[in-house]
Amino acid sequence: MEEKLMYLCMEQLGKDKVSRGESELYRHSRDESSHPFREPDFVFFPENTDDVVKVLLLANEHGIAVTPFGAGSGLEGQSIPMKKGISLNFDRMNNVVEFAPEDLMITVEPGMTRLQLNDFVNRHGLYFPIDPGADASIGGMVATNASGTTAVRYGSMRDQVLDLEVVLANGDVIHTGSKAKKSSSGYHLNGIFTGSEGTLGVITKVTVKLHGIPEKVLAARCTFPTPGECAEAAHVVLASGIQLMRMELVDAESIKQVNEYGNYSFPEAHSLFFEFAGSPNIVEEEASVVEELMHELGCQNWERANSSKERSDLWKARHELAYAYKHIKGKVSSGSDVCVPISKLAEMVVFGRELVEECGLIGGVFGHVGDGNFHTLIMYDPTNQLEYEKTEEINGKLALKAIALGGTCTGEHGVGLGKMKYQVAEHGKAVEWMKSMKVLFDPKGILNPEKMFY
Amino acid sequence: MEEKLMYLCMEQLGKDKVSRGESELYRHSRDESSHPFREPDFVFFPENTDDVVKVLLLANEHGIAVTPFGAGSGLEGQSIPMKKGISLNFDRMNNVVEFAPEDLMITVEPGMTRLQLNDFVNRHGLYFPIDPGADASIGGMVATNASGTTAVRYGSMRDQVLDLEVVLANGDVIHTGSKAKKSSSGYHLNGIFTGSEGTLGVITKVTVKLHGIPEKVLAARCTFPTPGECAEAAHVVLASGIQLMRMELVDAESIKQVNEYGNYSFPEAHSLFFEFAGSPNIVEEEASVVEELMHELGCQNWERANSSKERSDLWKARHELAYAYKHIKGKVSSGSDVCVPISKLAEMVVFGRELVEECGLIGGVFGHVGDGNFHTLIMYDPTNQLEYEKTEEINGKLALKAIALGGTCTGEHGVGLGKMKYQVAEHGKAVEWMKSMKVLFDPKGILNPEKMFY
Repeated sequence: MEEKLMYLCMEQLGKDKVSRGESELYRHSRDESSHPFREPDFVFFPENTDDVVKVLLLANEHGIAVTPFGAGSGLEGQSIPMKKGISLNFDRMNNVVEFAPEDLMITVEPGMTRLQLNDFVNRHGLYFPIDPGADASIGGMVATNASGTTAVRYGSMRDQVLDLEVVLANGDVIHTGSKAKKSSSGYHLNGIFTGSEGTLGVITKVTVKLHGIPEKVLAARCTFPTPGECAEAAHVVLASGIQLMRMELVDAESIKQVNEYGNYSFPEAHSLFFEFAGSPNIVEEEASVVEELMHELGCQNWERANSSKERSDLWKARHELAYAYKHIKGKVSSGSDVCVPISKLAEMVVFGRELVEECGLIGGVFGHVGDGNFHTLIMYDPTNQLEYEKTEEINGKLALKAIALGGTCTGEHGVGLGKMKYQVAEHGKAVEWMKSMKVLFDPKGILNPEKMFY
Repeated sequence: MEEKLMYLCMEQLGKDKVSRGESELYRHSRDESSHPFREPDFVFFPENTDDVVKVLLLANEHGIAVTPFGAGSGLEGQSIPMKKGISLNFDRMNNVVEFAPEDLMITVEPGMTRLQLNDFVNRHGLYFPIDPGADASIGGMVATNASGTTAVRYGSMRDQVLDLEVVLANGDVIHTGSKAKKSSSGYHLNGIFTGSEGTLGVITKVTVKLHGIPEKVLAARCTFPTPGECAEAAHVVLASGIQLMRMELVDAESIKQVNEYGNYSFPEAHSLFFEFAGSPNIVEEEASVVEELMHELGCQNWERANSSKERSDLWKARHELAYAYKHIKGKVSSGSDVCVPISKLAEMVVFGRELVEECGLIGGVFGHVGDGNFHTLIMYDPTNQLEYEKTEEINGKLALKAIALGGTCTGEHGVGLGKMKYQVAEHGKAVEWMKSMKVLFDPKGILNPEKMFY
């Protein structure tokens, strides 16, 4: 059947849009997580919305799975084609559709990456601030409701999305919002399609807000004796009402990995990294207030990155963190992504650090403490079942504790394969209603099957 | 049947929770709009979630309509019980459930009003910023995705809601979010229940973000020769990236009404009202920058409200605007609520002002120009069919033009009865999917029937 469908696609859409070359099947079998790989039957490269409509109509008719694939930088296996079938690759749909600088707004195709988007708008004094670290595709970022280091200021993708064009399983093309900055019209489809991980429809256009590039950016960092004190300090900064651009916690072990991997020489202690951005006077004042607060709390090693080189090094180091761990040979990483109310952060961070230490594997605690979201990252030997089980146990303990504290099992990576098992614990009876919504939009279950819910 | 249900409710829930007294039926037959009144069969006053569950189970079993009623301050008839049945009044569910100042978060019952909420949190240095003018109930504000003068800074209710407890038509009690500041877990139910106007479920608890009370607040106003120039000036301020607290346009006719009604003596010209809020130095700097920008654009009558009395007068006048028009005897008001991309605002405002002038009735143009949302308000004689038709024609022209420009027919009042006819123009095929979602959650159509969609 898959074979037949492939030939139908080739016939109706053109041979050059379909591939089952070995290297393509390999590339589309995985993402940056360590979830088990699975190859699609073939890869389809749509060039416009109409191509997507045609493929979905065929796939829906024949009951073949369709799994969208952006940049492959996901961390929860969202783009792995669990039921094989078609991998829908958006490399060729990476154009600007409409740019409206006067409205601080742009519409792009989903295959455009975050850096491509910024390259395009930066020269107009604008930027798109959501920054998950990787050069993810905009479509993938919408699908997982990605965020990252700037969420403390700009929220998640959901806060930036004004409108989506989505192709549904039956071929319907709908818009989920409008170009107005706010609306009370109809049900908020933007909200449910953002973060739906390709399970409700396939995103073919994305309209997002843009922001003015801040006139001045200033970075700083300091250290504390324990990760708990770092989290407490982060809480104090937030309560002060200062509008940070970024505030990150990186524990001593992670600093050590970054120093080794990247040839940096940061003090190997539990650290807070700050970024302030805005007009020069305001930024200076904010940095001074935070410096004073940190000293009152007993911080060590307060240091401002004065040059733009120093600043970029500082944040480059933070972004390289996950990769820094990956230089450890023979190991793969397993990560958690919990997010809790800010007042519970210190407790969670201490708990996370203790779990990592107890398990005897190398790992770190770091994350976007400005919004209560942080990660543990533990390196394990994928051929060693015991090590794998240890990491899974830790991830489970973290997820369930976060949920018990009123938080979530995933702040920004999404559910994919790794967080399915915590959905009922987190959402209770609402999960049944989410599954009913899935059935409503995709009655044959062709859209990214075996993801999000059991 | 309704009679039988009322006795069942009395029996199962207590006599004192049910009323069909004349004055109660009258009060629950209307809101602040001029949509036709309709009385419910009886009014039910739940005291907790369990009461709501029991009533919905009974109503669903017997197919009786249930229409939630908050403060009755809606502007689109959302709380009018079109199919009679039960009006669900939340006066007795107005308590604080959980207050977490350290997390800038509070959970309240839906009957608590905006001012009650602020009374409670203000003494802790916190406030809830969404301000639709009226002292609406929090539940009603969630249901309509309300916003108002502070949306330019804080967005709409949807941006402030972290979690809702909702009772569904079948009696299921679900939570739509969590207490984490961000989440990528599950479908974003917060988004669809906020703004669903009681058509998908009944809100029984609301968790919202709180914010620190700004240290300093500064107000100012200026005038321009035309409403178009006001809108252009608003656009320039927004593009400057300055974080305003409020920015409102009030046209000359509306200033005249406010002066007459409230004994003010504002210059009777097309005006922009500003509010800046934050730490004192920053606020001073922001006001100076805007003052300079306005003078460059040729504004007249720039004036700062220096004392807190002056400032409160200025904003009191703005809030009294809709009521100011209502002192015109024998007339009722008809309003539009469009929201467009910022660059289209000047065009829309000029268009709106022209329509008002052409129609020969008294009316004004004013609104939250910081987010592209503005209102026309036209006074007509409800016994004069021709006048009524004129206002409807104007509302229709405004809605359709806003939609054609990429905007929405309702920025903050909601759909209710008045904007149903523009849903297909705005949302196209997506309306069918919204209706399917309605059927999914409320298969018997008991929840606020005959609203939002035909």
